[in-house]
Amino acid sequence: MTGDPTTQPALAVALPLRADLIGEVPYGAPQLDVPHLLNVNENPYAPPAEVVADIAESVAAAAAGLNRYPDRDFPALRQDLADYLAAESGARDLEVANMWAANGSNEVMLHLLQAFGGPGRSVMSFAPTYSMYPEYARDTFTRWVAGTRRPDFSLDPAQTIAQIENERPAVVLLASPNNPTGTALDVATIDAIASATANTGPDGAASVLVVDEAYAEFRRDGTPSALSILARHPHLAVSRTMSKAFAFAGARLGYLAAAPDLVDALRVVRLPYHLSAVTQAVARAALRHRAVLQAQVAQLRTERDATVSWLREQGFTVADSDANFVLFGRFDDRHVIWQGLLDRGVLIRETGPSEYLRVSIGTAEEMAAFRGALKEVTGR
Amino acid sequence: MTGDPTTQPALAVALPLRADLIGEVPYGAPQLDVPHLLNVNENPYAPPAEVVADIAESVAAAAAGLNRYPDRDFPALRQDLADYLAAESGARDLEVANMWAANGSNEVMLHLLQAFGGPGRSVMSFAPTYSMYPEYARDTFTRWVAGTRRPDFSLDPAQTIAQIENERPAVVLLASPNNPTGTALDVATIDAIASATANTGPDGAASVLVVDEAYAEFRRDGTPSALSILARHPHLAVSRTMSKAFAFAGARLGYLAAAPDLVDALRVVRLPYHLSAVTQAVARAALRHRAVLQAQVAQLRTERDATVSWLREQGFTVADSDANFVLFGRFDDRHVIWQGLLDRGVLIRETGPSEYLRVSIGTAEEMAAFRGALKEVTGR
Repeated sequence: MTGDPTTQPALAVALPLRADLIGEVPYGAPQLDVPHLLNVNENPYAPPAEVVADIAESVAAAAAGLNRYPDRDFPALRQDLADYLAAESGARDLEVANMWAANGSNEVMLHLLQAFGGPGRSVMSFAPTYSMYPEYARDTFTRWVAGTRRPDFSLDPAQTIAQIENERPAVVLLASPNNPTGTALDVATIDAIASATANTGPDGAASVLVVDEAYAEFRRDGTPSALSILARHPHLAVSRTMSKAFAFAGARLGYLAAAPDLVDALRVVRLPYHLSAVTQAVARAALRHRAVLQAQVAQLRTERDATVSWLREQGFTVADSDANFVLFGRFDDRHVIWQGLLDRGVLIRETGPSEYLRVSIGTAEEMAAFRGALKEVTGR
Repeated sequence: MTGDPTTQPALAVALPLRADLIGEVPYGAPQLDVPHLLNVNENPYAPPAEVVADIAESVAAAAAGLNRYPDRDFPALRQDLADYLAAESGARDLEVANMWAANGSNEVMLHLLQAFGGPGRSVMSFAPTYSMYPEYARDTFTRWVAGTRRPDFSLDPAQTIAQIENERPAVVLLASPNNPTGTALDVATIDAIASATANTGPDGAASVLVVDEAYAEFRRDGTPSALSILARHPHLAVSRTMSKAFAFAGARLGYLAAAPDLVDALRVVRLPYHLSAVTQAVARAALRHRAVLQAQVAQLRTERDATVSWLREQGFTVADSDANFVLFGRFDDRHVIWQGLLDRGVLIRETGPSEYLRVSIGTAEEMAAFRGALKEVTGR
C-alpha cells in the first residue's frame, strides 16, 4: 500500500446482491402525514394514561438490569400469553412449552420458514392473501406458491386440500381472518385441512399448517379460533399479534401457539436474545391491562359492521369481514379513488385484487370522514 | 368428519424439520444463577438511576403512540448513531443513509447474509472466531467456510487474501477485536483485505467485507477503527453493538455503518417495522447518556490489562486482548477448570480453542473472586 489509506478515493465495485433481489424495494405502505390514517389496519385508540404509566414503570424496572442479556426463553411472557389465550379463546391446555413470541408476527413467520422451509421446499397460501407472505418466502429461499380461493374469497375445503396434495408444501399459511379480504375460516374447514395435511409435506412428513389469526379478536360472534383444535394437530400453529386488538403495533410483539415439538424447532433457528428485556416488560404490562386495551374492540367491530352495511347501501361490492378492515370495490381504476381520498385527507390502501381497495376501521369520526370523502370522489 | 373435532385425540405426525437442523439445539451459553457472571462478556455496571429515569420517560412518550406502527426507517436513531461514531471514532462523514440498525448485531448479520448470501454462496471467516457466525450461515442457507489464523490468532494479510481468493465468498466476516481471542486487527491489514476483495465475490462482484467491532470501544490506545477507511470501500461494512460498551445487552441494539448502496440492500430484506418504537426510544435515550454509560469503559480496560498481566505471571498462556474478555490456557481438560470455578461461584465460558477458557472482565471484586478461585482450582 502507498499513502494514507484514510484519504484515498473510493474504488468502484459491484456488490454481490442476490440476483432475485435486484430491483426489489423495501416492503411497506406509504408512511404519510395525513389526518385520517386508515391504511395499515392500526387500532386508532392510543393506550390510556394508566397503561402508559405501568409500561414506563415496568421498563424502568427492566432498565436497571439492561447491562445483562435478556432471558433467551422468556418463560414469564410465554405464560402470560398462554393465560391470555385461555381467557380470550378458551384455550385452557396451553403451557409455556406451547408458546413462542418474536418481534412482530412477521418474525414468528420467519422462524417458521427458517425451520421448515428453505431451498427445495415450498410454502403455499391462497390468493388474495397477505402481501408479506411472498417476502417471507423470498427471505428464506422457500418457493412461494399461491393457490386459489372461491370468488367470495372463502376456501373450499376439498379444493384447498387437492391443491395442497398436488404441491406438497412444507408450510401452508392460512390467514383467518384473511388480509386483505377480512374472510374468516370456519373451524371445520381448518380441521379438515389439518387432518389432510398430516403427510402432505416433504418426504412424507406433514405440511406445517399455520393459521395466522392476527385479527382474531375482531371476529364476529360464533366464529371459534383455530386454537380450539390445536391439541389434535401436532403440525398446526396458530399465530397472533398484539399489534391490532391490543393497539400495540409500535411495540412489535407477535406470538404463536403450537405443540412443544414445533416450538422447539423455532427455538433452534431464533437468534439468541431476539426478544429484548424491554420488549418482554412492555408486552407483559400490556397483557396485565388487556381489558382496558381491548375496551374498544367491540366498538371497532360495530363500526366495521356499519361500514360494510353502508358500503353495500351505496352499491359497492363488499367482502364479509371478521377483521378491523373492509375490502370493497369494484373500481375500473382504483388508484384514482385512492388518490381522491388522499387528497381529502383519508389514506386507505391499494392492495389485494386490482378492482378493490381496503379501508381500516378507525374511530367514528374517521369513518365519517371516509364516507364523506368516498361519496365526493365516486359521486355516489 | 365425525364427532367434535375439539375432543378427538392428537394424530401422530412427523414435522418437516430441515434435515440440517435435526439434532441441533438452541444456541446460547448456560444462563445460571451464580454470584459472578463472567461468561457472556456483559458489562458489569448497570445503568445509573439518571439513565433509567430518562429511559422510562422516553418510553412513556413513545408508549402514548404505540397503537401506530413505528417508523420503518428510524432516521432519528440512525442520525444519533452516526453522531456517536463521529465522536467515538472520528467518523465524521457518516449520514443517515450510511447507517443501519436491528435487534442486536446478530440481526444485522442476518440481514447481511439474507441480502448477499444464500444457497450456492459462501460466507468466510477465520478460526477461532465468534461461535454464532456458523449459525448465521446455517439460518440463511449460506455455506460456512473457516479459514485459518496465525498461531497468535492474528491475521496474515497475504495468507488471508489468498484464502479469500481461493474460496470466492460472497461475505467475509472479520471480528476486531476478535471473539473469543480478543485480537484486534490493525487498520492496514483491514485496508489490504478490503482492497483485495473488490472482485473476489460471486460473478466478479466484491466480497462484502464485514468488520464486526462489537467490542471496539475496549480497544487499546492507538488502534483505529475500520471506520477510518470506510469511505474508500463501498463493499466494507463496520458493525457495532450497544450491548457491551453501553452496558445495554438487554436492550438489543446492534448497528452498522456502510455505503448507502449496501445499506439499501439490507432495507430490502429487513422485516418491515423490525425495530419497535420502544427500542428506538430506549436506544436514543442511551445515546444521549453515552458519557455516563461508558464511564467505566476505561476502568474495564485497566482491569483487562491487569488480568492479562496477572494470568501471565501465573504462567498461563494469554492472548493479547483489545476487548472486555481474555482468552487463557492451556489446559489438558478445560472442563475440569470451568467446573471448579463454577463450584466457587465464578461462571466463565468454555469456548474457542479446546485448551483455552474465556473470562469476561467484571468489577474489581469479581476479578478478585476469579483470581482466587482460579488459584484454588489450578493449585498455582
